[in-house]
Amino acid sequence: MSKGETTRSAILDVALATASKIGLEALTIGGLAREAGLSKSGLFAHFASKEDLQLEVVRKAIARFVELVIAPALKKPRGEPRVRALFENWFSWSRASELPGGCLFIAASSEFDDQPGPVRDLLLSSQKDWLGVLAQAARVAVEEGHFKATLDAEQFAWQLDSFILGYHHSARLLRSKDAQKRAQTAFESLIRASRA
Amino acid sequence: MSKGETTRSAILDVALATASKIGLEALTIGGLAREAGLSKSGLFAHFASKEDLQLEVVRKAIARFVELVIAPALKKPRGEPRVRALFENWFSWSRASELPGGCLFIAASSEFDDQPGPVRDLLLSSQKDWLGVLAQAARVAVEEGHFKATLDAEQFAWQLDSFILGYHHSARLLRSKDAQKRAQTAFESLIRASRA
Repeated sequence: MSKGETTRSAILDVALATASKIGLEALTIGGLAREAGLSKSGLFAHFASKEDLQLEVVRKAIARFVELVIAPALKKPRGEPRVRALFENWFSWSRASELPGGCLFIAASSEFDDQPGPVRDLLLSSQKDWLGVLAQAARVAVEEGHFKATLDAEQFAWQLDSFILGYHHSARLLRSKDAQKRAQTAFESLIRASRA
Repeated sequence: MSKGETTRSAILDVALATASKIGLEALTIGGLAREAGLSKSGLFAHFASKEDLQLEVVRKAIARFVELVIAPALKKPRGEPRVRALFENWFSWSRASELPGGCLFIAASSEFDDQPGPVRDLLLSSQKDWLGVLAQAARVAVEEGHFKATLDAEQFAWQLDSFILGYHHSARLLRSKDAQKRAQTAFESLIRASRA
């Protein structure tokens, strides 16, 4: 990486951590410059606009999500073990040190649900990709004979993702100590109901 | 109601609708004055501060939630019919004309999860109350012999609420036409798994 790329990457690390705490909307070039110890004009050299910065933060989050959640799950055996890994890896992602405020996608989804534009489009396509990965893992589990042939893979993905949203909500807002246990129990009941 | 109370109530109607669209944080006395066709000083006569306004909006939302979701469900027969009514009434609430941006509680929860203070405390206690109402309805369904005696009522409530969060997420961010169908299917599978 060139010096410019290294600086840009370091800024994005700070921006991702900050956005996970205060939201993508509250992320300003000025505020980020202070956090990163750079001048505002120095930051503008890397990001043309606030929207450009927001898009880069979401792209960085997607890349990290693929590294932490999807890539390791694809190394697991096809079928239920891979489905299980996707669910479990999501918690590693949500608790990763670079995300002190929890999953950026869920937080940003609420922020941008009424704001059409490229940031919302990118969030939307990444969420659809995630649901697609979950549904595909469920279809593989059907092929492997782990899950029943009549399983609705999209519905399975939707319910699994709902438990993730439930976890995020309980853990973040309600500060519930049970959040992980509740999500795990819900996941096991979904797996049981899906088995062949 | 006195003229002052009528005005205050009308302002809160506008504030609730606005907050459902743009969030509680973005709700300003100035912006609300413009929307309600009042002077900023006129508005300050009714609400001492932005936080006071936010608290009143959440209190208004809680009162409407009780009217639209909880009170009608309590008129239904004890057991599964009451559980079903709570779930179905939630959708009426989420689509009520006074909430053009969807459920205020879910949106505000994301906004305030990292902001300790009286608004967060009120949101937290209202969410705990809602989970408590759902769990109690499930316990009544056990008593009535509709649900199995071994049912974990808190876990039932948690999963039901996760499907509501999943619906909100799908319908708001993903603009998914399937959101209601997915939530309904998930709910029916939860009911089936809970029956005696």
